[in-house]
Amino acid sequence: MTAVDFDAFVHNLATVSGEAILPFFRTALGVDDKSRGRAFDPVTEADRAGEQAMRRLIRETFPAHGIIGEEFDNVATEAPYVWALDPIDGTKSFIAGLPAWGTLIGLLKEGDPVYGMMHQPFIGERFFGDGGVSRYLGPAGERLLKARDCGRIEDAILFTTSPRLMNAEDRAAFSLVEERAKLSRYGGDCYAYCMVAAGLVDLVIETELQDHDVIALVPIIEGAGGVVTNWEGGSPVAGGRVAAAGSRKVHEAALRQLTA
Amino acid sequence: MTAVDFDAFVHNLATVSGEAILPFFRTALGVDDKSRGRAFDPVTEADRAGEQAMRRLIRETFPAHGIIGEEFDNVATEAPYVWALDPIDGTKSFIAGLPAWGTLIGLLKEGDPVYGMMHQPFIGERFFGDGGVSRYLGPAGERLLKARDCGRIEDAILFTTSPRLMNAEDRAAFSLVEERAKLSRYGGDCYAYCMVAAGLVDLVIETELQDHDVIALVPIIEGAGGVVTNWEGGSPVAGGRVAAAGSRKVHEAALRQLTA
Repeated sequence: MTAVDFDAFVHNLATVSGEAILPFFRTALGVDDKSRGRAFDPVTEADRAGEQAMRRLIRETFPAHGIIGEEFDNVATEAPYVWALDPIDGTKSFIAGLPAWGTLIGLLKEGDPVYGMMHQPFIGERFFGDGGVSRYLGPAGERLLKARDCGRIEDAILFTTSPRLMNAEDRAAFSLVEERAKLSRYGGDCYAYCMVAAGLVDLVIETELQDHDVIALVPIIEGAGGVVTNWEGGSPVAGGRVAAAGSRKVHEAALRQLTA
Repeated sequence: MTAVDFDAFVHNLATVSGEAILPFFRTALGVDDKSRGRAFDPVTEADRAGEQAMRRLIRETFPAHGIIGEEFDNVATEAPYVWALDPIDGTKSFIAGLPAWGTLIGLLKEGDPVYGMMHQPFIGERFFGDGGVSRYLGPAGERLLKARDCGRIEDAILFTTSPRLMNAEDRAAFSLVEERAKLSRYGGDCYAYCMVAAGLVDLVIETELQDHDVIALVPIIEGAGGVVTNWEGGSPVAGGRVAAAGSRKVHEAALRQLTA
């Protein structure tokens, strides 16, 4: 199976998960909160519905493939092909009704990320790549994604979900990069990484990531010419402390500062 | 002129400004940065184009009305009707390619905000109200907006654009509310206020706002049953330090904490 073979399949995964998730987004709009049962948690319901829809389609189409997910047990992680699913990356945005969340669909081949998609079903946009080429499809049409080289940290637009999620030591290291950056911004989750691929953001630095938070993003960033590793410069596939940049030069400068 | 009279007119303002702004959003997507002239600043170009389009339509339709804008000189601010325009609220999101920005269109009558709209042309959604009723129109259909009462700060989802924008004293006061809140989130700009109206966010606390940042939001929040004032409990129309909440109870609790 090559990237070309399952391009259409991944788009199908995006479509079925989007249909499962969207009914739960902004459910409070026009609904009296008190009329709902107390246990109703839209983001958990949406997460589970989205992941179930994707797991069902994978099981039907590629029964031998493994699955790493957020909401249910991992399956056959020793298989040659393993899917990494995060139905709602950016749950805090989702809960608050902001559109800066997305569904992450990644594929590992023998442990390497070979295909990834970020899908935002409310806006109707998709960022996807296979490590060689990355593309965008959405309200702005269809385009190639190309990361940019801003040259140095001092000219970088930097994102992190929140420094409050970092332990004290990591936060101190992050702050040294943040003080040098041209512009620092919090939130964004998967969007920040996709904007590295799109050449609009230069640097994303985070900690405490799960594997399913990052696997899908690797082929999108690398296919656009960007770089993503853990803070030590190794594979980011396991999650943890991750740094993504639009160019090797800026990425190296960031890692030097983070591990100084 | 009543609210009903200019409902269609405000939708036209949103349409023309959206058409002017959108070509500048995510312009780097697929474009080599080096091919552009150095002076090209998409957000400034978009701001100016959006505001010019709205000013032209206002001038043609209501030549006696005043205009408060972000990019050009104020006009006839002593007129009975004055428009308050912010073509791109959330410029940092705009620059970074994230969709959490919007166009603010407000109308003052004898100094009071009587109509407001937030328009997100990329997503295609509009939040609008006249202080009595607030509505939503977008991918999720058309709905009434209704703020919620979460009861107390400890159960509140809190937004601010960034504590780093606050002076030390205001930041200290904000932090006391933030420590009590259930969830605190940065960024969002006009979206955070619209999500108060939509019953998904409970509290927005900010400082250093301009008049055109807040005027359009007042009738949307109030029409949805929410409350928005300055930190002292007075009219928020001048900008400065502003607090919005989904209910009077939570608003009062926040002001008490902020001014303790």
